[in-house]
Amino acid sequence: MTVRNLSSVSDSLIADELAEVQKFLSEQLNCPDDRLAAFIDYLKHRQGKMLRASVLLLSGRLFGDINKIHIEIAAVVEMIHAATLLHDDVIDDGRSRRGHATANNLWGANLAVLLGDYLLSKAFLTMESLQRNDISRILTDTAATICQGEMLQNALRGDSAIGVEEYLEIIEKKTAVFFANCGRLGAIISEADENDCEALYDFGLNLGMAFQITDDLIDIVGKESETGKTGGRDVENKILTLPAIKSIDFAKSQIVHYRQKAVSSLAGFDPNPAALALKELADSVTQLPL
Amino acid sequence: MTVRNLSSVSDSLIADELAEVQKFLSEQLNCPDDRLAAFIDYLKHRQGKMLRASVLLLSGRLFGDINKIHIEIAAVVEMIHAATLLHDDVIDDGRSRRGHATANNLWGANLAVLLGDYLLSKAFLTMESLQRNDISRILTDTAATICQGEMLQNALRGDSAIGVEEYLEIIEKKTAVFFANCGRLGAIISEADENDCEALYDFGLNLGMAFQITDDLIDIVGKESETGKTGGRDVENKILTLPAIKSIDFAKSQIVHYRQKAVSSLAGFDPNPAALALKELADSVTQLPL
Repeated sequence: MTVRNLSSVSDSLIADELAEVQKFLSEQLNCPDDRLAAFIDYLKHRQGKMLRASVLLLSGRLFGDINKIHIEIAAVVEMIHAATLLHDDVIDDGRSRRGHATANNLWGANLAVLLGDYLLSKAFLTMESLQRNDISRILTDTAATICQGEMLQNALRGDSAIGVEEYLEIIEKKTAVFFANCGRLGAIISEADENDCEALYDFGLNLGMAFQITDDLIDIVGKESETGKTGGRDVENKILTLPAIKSIDFAKSQIVHYRQKAVSSLAGFDPNPAALALKELADSVTQLPL
Repeated sequence: MTVRNLSSVSDSLIADELAEVQKFLSEQLNCPDDRLAAFIDYLKHRQGKMLRASVLLLSGRLFGDINKIHIEIAAVVEMIHAATLLHDDVIDDGRSRRGHATANNLWGANLAVLLGDYLLSKAFLTMESLQRNDISRILTDTAATICQGEMLQNALRGDSAIGVEEYLEIIEKKTAVFFANCGRLGAIISEADENDCEALYDFGLNLGMAFQITDDLIDIVGKESETGKTGGRDVENKILTLPAIKSIDFAKSQIVHYRQKAVSSLAGFDPNPAALALKELADSVTQLPL
């Protein structure tokens, strides 16, 4: 999936800026060592939908023009995200993502672990060069929270007593807090007032919850050909039992719930075109292939 | 091995400060989530010889008293180091280290990868809270260099054409640059002049080279019971062939070479007791159990 498919409104509003983010990101990854060129090249060409960068840029766009700090922090955010994906694929032994072989598939788990570490270090290095301690603290704190969520998920894996509450806690930590801080950072960099920063945090948090539940539901009901990643582990043959149908219905209701909460956080910004684009983005990332 | 075994001089000079580093480090790792307590506890109780913290503290001590920033950055350095060890053990499938089961042995590779990520994020978060951009840049850059060295090692693994030059390049990146920057940071935090900071960088760089060659040699000639880690992969039965003996002799000569270079970097600081302690540290980490 390319950025173009994301949303028509955000496309026209931040298309140039997303291209700048990609360009800056590629520059940051440059490594003078030819022997590592294949790995670095892999990182440069595996940029996905840039959802987190889009949330950050559109949140910034709500308050005026996108500036250089928005672009550079959007790149840092995508680097952190890509690092977590590299390690996720090691942990889940994912063989393909976005229609391409994963790093662990190509070069083994060891190299994929190191490549993730390298990318995370480069992300923090890029962030440091901006000398914005307020931003750096939010992003390092976010990185630690993502790890906590992933550790919790791993620690509770196979525990049949895990309930809806724990699931929601895990996805908040591993996914939603990151989106929340992307929204907040876009506003902070635009020097928005505190209430507006909080509104964008809330938008991102609820968007992230809706997005992750959608993603998990696609893993169950979707096909690899549609999602571009190894999935469909539970209901691959599509013979749905009554409990499965009820579970899917419940998940769908939760997606609607969080998407509505996300959209309502933007109420104060109507009729700003960036607010419209954020709403369209919320619709687009919660669509099910059914 | 405890800190006490390290060196009698450094023991008396920085024993209290090393205890402070350990205390601060434990506080930074506190996590309110009981379900992760076992993992966090593991991190708190697997602090090793604290060599990198010792280099940083003694380098600082050369120029006067150790201050709060020395202590906190020494803790950050040990956190970064511990994170790399967690991932190293995943990559090498190490089953024991310092006489204890590794994290991947206890809980599997997945959890060990995540625990390393968590620790690295916490290290960066602790560093950020100090608001010292000069220090943060050096340490994030160091983290990226370590990853480059590890990736290079991994990419060239099994390549019979790899020569002494590549080996030295790899250990410089994955080990020596870290020691070098510990030396430099100790001096920088003490507000030493640039020449002195460079001298301590050189000390750490050469110490790191000597230390890593020693460590690799112990892996070949040492026993698990002596080193506390899984090792002795090549010459476990101690029947040494002539090529092996020549290789070991060459490695020993390199250890002496780098140790001497390290010690000569300290020439300008005689008869400062911290310089003496750094020299003793260089002797102590290059001792072979033969």
